[in-house]
Amino acid sequence: MTYINPIVSSYIDKKMSGYNPALNNIERMAIASSVPIISRDVAAFLKQQVILSKAKNILEIGTAVGYSGSLMLLNSEAKLTTIELNESNYQIAKENFEQLGLNTRCRQIMGDASEVLNVLITEDTLYDLVFIDAAKGHYLDYFQKSEKILSENGIIIADNVLFKGYTCGMPYQRRQKTIVKRMNQFIDYVLENDNYISSLLSIGDGVILSIRKS
Amino acid sequence: MTYINPIVSSYIDKKMSGYNPALNNIERMAIASSVPIISRDVAAFLKQQVILSKAKNILEIGTAVGYSGSLMLLNSEAKLTTIELNESNYQIAKENFEQLGLNTRCRQIMGDASEVLNVLITEDTLYDLVFIDAAKGHYLDYFQKSEKILSENGIIIADNVLFKGYTCGMPYQRRQKTIVKRMNQFIDYVLENDNYISSLLSIGDGVILSIRKS
Repeated sequence: MTYINPIVSSYIDKKMSGYNPALNNIERMAIASSVPIISRDVAAFLKQQVILSKAKNILEIGTAVGYSGSLMLLNSEAKLTTIELNESNYQIAKENFEQLGLNTRCRQIMGDASEVLNVLITEDTLYDLVFIDAAKGHYLDYFQKSEKILSENGIIIADNVLFKGYTCGMPYQRRQKTIVKRMNQFIDYVLENDNYISSLLSIGDGVILSIRKS
Repeated sequence: MTYINPIVSSYIDKKMSGYNPALNNIERMAIASSVPIISRDVAAFLKQQVILSKAKNILEIGTAVGYSGSLMLLNSEAKLTTIELNESNYQIAKENFEQLGLNTRCRQIMGDASEVLNVLITEDTLYDLVFIDAAKGHYLDYFQKSEKILSENGIIIADNVLFKGYTCGMPYQRRQKTIVKRMNQFIDYVLENDNYISSLLSIGDGVILSIRKS
């Protein structure tokens, strides 16, 4: 949360700790092995949107070690389809879902999300909630493909859209230029899209919440 | 949004402009007469929570000039009860609600919110959504009284809880000490309350969203 005053971000992080005790182990393990997971405020926010939206069918783009997926399953009766490119993460997530008894409600797919989405859009299943937390340079593609399988009044949540503030113009390295440009295109596409009611929120590393209009 | 990097906060403010064209006049007028209204990101967030919660009955503590109240009414079929201490604001809000044709769904009450809430808790009406945006030193009282008239699965949203970061320990003036202390008590009460699923969000000047558990 580099664009937020560190006094404030550590206050929030402290106040939001211990909010999901069932997930403490996954959180600790992820931190120890440097696998990025959603920040605690985003976790609380995501949990609330899962509850309010009453989502029955959830799609997650970017499983990582299954932290956010488990969080969503533990706070709903939904089924989860979750996509992960990295085999090691995929395996760790598999163990985590099993340990929490969530595997029966979870379809894990290993593969490149853009490719996997091409398959999902040929299936009959619609999703009530899509959570995007994968390669930052491909958010627009993920969003546009997700639109095709999003249910009426469905919601899409995308994490890390402010990319440490680089998206907004805070100084970044030359090698990040393409990602920043693409993230800007994604944000403009979503916020200017009349089919959705969207908000751009300065929580975690930046979150977009979009609700499809009826 | 003083605890957020100004590059980021002005980016968000710009991207979220023009999101509620029906309210542009009220927004302009409020800014011109220095009446504080909710920031654009909080407005977008509030609108979304009104939609997702499908609130039928809304209580607002702090009408100001009717900006947030109108926003909530325009994005729902709900009825609104809204409380305001300042007579000038009350009158301006009255005109604004009338001009937008929202007055038939709106009960405006002039008075001290703590006193008015004492009356509301004797009525039969339950509220699905309570929006707190009034005197910062009294949030705990507002919240505790609102709990008594909050429907099952009802939500409470409180704005300005981070108070420019002072709540988190950013340097403040001595005269703000009491408000800061009370806001901390409020935040701890809410976040440690097992009857609610809450999040503390660094949007606008800080927002708490609490969902009552079934």
